[in-house]
Amino acid sequence: MTDSRTMFSTAPSLMTRRQLLHRLGLVGGSSLVMGTMGAWDLMGDARQPRPAWQRSGRQASVIILGGGLSGLVAGWELGKLGYDCQILEARESVGGLCWTVRRGDSHTEVGGERQVCDFDEGQYFNAGAWRIPHADTGVLDYCAELGVPLELFVNSTDANFLYEEDPERGPLAGRRVRLREVKADLWGSITELLAKAVDQGQLDVPLTPEDRERLVTFLVQAGYLDSVDYVYRPPELRGSEERYDLSALLTAGFGARVRSLYANTGGPDPVFQPIGGMQQIPLAFHRAMEERVVLGTEVLSIRQTESQVRVAYRNVRTGGVGEATAEYCICCLPMAVLKTIDVELSPEMAEAVASTSHSDSAKMGLQMKRRFWEEDDGIFGGHLFNRSLGLGEFSYPSNGYLTEKGILLGFYAGGSTAELDQKPIRERIEYVLTQAGKVHPQMRAEFDTAYAVWWEKVPYSLGAYGRSPEEGARAQLAQADGRLYLGSAGTGTRPAWLQGAIESAWQSVDSLHRRVSAG
Amino acid sequence: MTDSRTMFSTAPSLMTRRQLLHRLGLVGGSSLVMGTMGAWDLMGDARQPRPAWQRSGRQASVIILGGGLSGLVAGWELGKLGYDCQILEARESVGGLCWTVRRGDSHTEVGGERQVCDFDEGQYFNAGAWRIPHADTGVLDYCAELGVPLELFVNSTDANFLYEEDPERGPLAGRRVRLREVKADLWGSITELLAKAVDQGQLDVPLTPEDRERLVTFLVQAGYLDSVDYVYRPPELRGSEERYDLSALLTAGFGARVRSLYANTGGPDPVFQPIGGMQQIPLAFHRAMEERVVLGTEVLSIRQTESQVRVAYRNVRTGGVGEATAEYCICCLPMAVLKTIDVELSPEMAEAVASTSHSDSAKMGLQMKRRFWEEDDGIFGGHLFNRSLGLGEFSYPSNGYLTEKGILLGFYAGGSTAELDQKPIRERIEYVLTQAGKVHPQMRAEFDTAYAVWWEKVPYSLGAYGRSPEEGARAQLAQADGRLYLGSAGTGTRPAWLQGAIESAWQSVDSLHRRVSAG
Repeated sequence: MTDSRTMFSTAPSLMTRRQLLHRLGLVGGSSLVMGTMGAWDLMGDARQPRPAWQRSGRQASVIILGGGLSGLVAGWELGKLGYDCQILEARESVGGLCWTVRRGDSHTEVGGERQVCDFDEGQYFNAGAWRIPHADTGVLDYCAELGVPLELFVNSTDANFLYEEDPERGPLAGRRVRLREVKADLWGSITELLAKAVDQGQLDVPLTPEDRERLVTFLVQAGYLDSVDYVYRPPELRGSEERYDLSALLTAGFGARVRSLYANTGGPDPVFQPIGGMQQIPLAFHRAMEERVVLGTEVLSIRQTESQVRVAYRNVRTGGVGEATAEYCICCLPMAVLKTIDVELSPEMAEAVASTSHSDSAKMGLQMKRRFWEEDDGIFGGHLFNRSLGLGEFSYPSNGYLTEKGILLGFYAGGSTAELDQKPIRERIEYVLTQAGKVHPQMRAEFDTAYAVWWEKVPYSLGAYGRSPEEGARAQLAQADGRLYLGSAGTGTRPAWLQGAIESAWQSVDSLHRRVSAG
Repeated sequence: MTDSRTMFSTAPSLMTRRQLLHRLGLVGGSSLVMGTMGAWDLMGDARQPRPAWQRSGRQASVIILGGGLSGLVAGWELGKLGYDCQILEARESVGGLCWTVRRGDSHTEVGGERQVCDFDEGQYFNAGAWRIPHADTGVLDYCAELGVPLELFVNSTDANFLYEEDPERGPLAGRRVRLREVKADLWGSITELLAKAVDQGQLDVPLTPEDRERLVTFLVQAGYLDSVDYVYRPPELRGSEERYDLSALLTAGFGARVRSLYANTGGPDPVFQPIGGMQQIPLAFHRAMEERVVLGTEVLSIRQTESQVRVAYRNVRTGGVGEATAEYCICCLPMAVLKTIDVELSPEMAEAVASTSHSDSAKMGLQMKRRFWEEDDGIFGGHLFNRSLGLGEFSYPSNGYLTEKGILLGFYAGGSTAELDQKPIRERIEYVLTQAGKVHPQMRAEFDTAYAVWWEKVPYSLGAYGRSPEEGARAQLAQADGRLYLGSAGTGTRPAWLQGAIESAWQSVDSLHRRVSAG
């Protein structure tokens, strides 16, 4: 299953590399795969197949730090190989950046305000990871293995609005324009230009007369042209008979959203989400190995001896401190958190860790009394393309269609946008209501309650996803530092994605298992 | 809710008509709406808002024949108005053409074979109605009212294959080609032609030099052109670097699948399906008014006196016959079934009924051991565009993604295609495996079991959806014939859609209620 699934990337160069890996994997097992490629970090951002590890007769005890996705995967795979693992997680639930905010969830911003989520029961939004490209077979295979059902995430639909505020963007500035209007009018204008030119012999097209006729027929159909005079006639599907001027559309910059192929963050359709929120994935891991996960345990320091790793921790419920020891440790804490912990690293490793950085992304979910975007505007999922409004990815829910309430992702952008990180939460909400209200006047009247997650201010995260380290640092981060391995997403090439977290965990498991197996 | 939802059609002319109705409805209630329009049948295929009936203090007893969607809606709405209704259904479950075939379901073809469905538990396919356009607010409002959750139905995705067998269709005949390849290559060829012509001043484009530059920039981005020489460079998203020849694509006729706007049966995205199958809608109606539905009751004759309608029926379990009487009757049986029943109609009505016709559509669901289309080919929903294979709409499931087994809709076309209606079921399955196997060589090895529904051979249906009657016949069918009303989808303008069944039911309820209210 895993092998065949790794073959459906749409990127030809990746296909080839993966097919090679696949063939090698069939012949020589995972160590041959690793050996051929030299090191994981040389493989760039191709998706990795899950290595086919074998029990070697040797095992060890391992402390895994952090119950985010990478820590859970490391614990899961080592458990299969017979290792004695313990996962220490500071929070009262697993998931880390896979946080699905629901009623009753809470956090206190570092040096700041406390929020308690008061969404209605059953309402939620994904504050961190939120979409799974269908090429991310590492994630999808675990969903299948653990029984996490998936549904479609709508990244874009023709009903979505584009909005530009800047008057220099021409006559469409300040108007909300549908993606379907932009697509129909731009392609319509272009097919019209070409059909007329071909028909009038203005253009030297390298086609037979027969094919030239077929071309014009295609242009007429594809662009919704009049079959007699080749003038573009906006189709009913477009939603309004008014046609936007070609110059106005180009000046607005809306053409940047139009491509011959659908392209969006996460790659081509489909993009998936777990039914019930992204946290369903870590929760499923937790259920499957409850005995290995210790919640409410904050790591204070990591020390090594010749035969042991010693982790000092604080029980966040009692405040008491304690120590855990094991033969090895895989640290899956975010790099931003690792930097705050008392740990002795080799100078090279310390330098590599210090060189890492992360995104300051923030998200806000707003519960609305009524799904006005569906009822009034016929929008089901996708985004509001709003460059000038400073909301980043403003996104409509891809679940609970046509039910009563719903949560809009009103903001997904850098936390320092409009200096929001320096403002109280009330003012951040105001900002979103005001800016989004320019496109959706219903925002304020239908607003119910909101929850803001500025990841740099979230304890035990201290940042959103990592930035991919430089190649040199990445090679260093992939090495063992004595008995300590780093396995968080931030060590790899796709730290913003679940697949990246999984591959980083695989890398640490692979290195550790080969070392232990070699004795 | 109903009113606002009726506003999201994308068809401007319909919008206007509906907005008019909406405004009239706000002012004068539903009878004004009806009065203004003269008759339902004048309104063409615009979606109707649900009339806002009021209890009038007068009610009556009504027998409703047929527990398909139209009969259920009639019973539901009359029940709200205080009427004493009984719905007689010949089968052992409600739904009619809303049949979701599951393990244990069975039927014996008229004059032919018996099938018992042996799909795995949890596997199903919609043998009749299967998709709900998002403009069909009548359907969606009932789903909300009855708590039927919806999910997305994928009508088309760029990963879908197109296949032409006919050698006269040029060099691509006999090759499976991806929709994304066709789209990228056709638009790429066209943007390339235009960008070069504009750049070389070959074309007289009515744009300023600045806009002309913006146009070229747009063409380069949208068509994936080289920014220096304006040659089309197939993007990674396309899935392979090979570029199909413009002439080959045009000759194959694949351009007919490419439009500036996404267009497919059921209109623009999204198209919905109930989670768990289309029959969830009739089942929800049934649960909500169980006491009004009598299953296993086959109608034999309909007679009228001056004050009564008398319906003779046969209990299909015991074989015993009986009679039900009421002041009125709404017949929601398929027109094909009505034609076989002993009923006295006025000559005009008899003629109108005789003039109706229906589709001979058939469907086959094939359970596959493995979702090879997902695992091997990265196809998640949508169709195989296969004109020459004679499979009609061959469709991949839009649910249960990445689980183990799955049901392909292997055939949805006229039942007499390739004379399949004259062949045993085993041979019909063979046909589908052979034809679909030309595109999906895995078909035969992964085949598990199938269920075939040739609607003309299904007892109590005797055909698939109706064809819309001629205008004159439609006006006649909308009249009361004494105390008998016709309310099946086959009397209206959109008989192939759930929305049509609902609107036909509304029409009969509206006429009856106005008559009873008038005393």
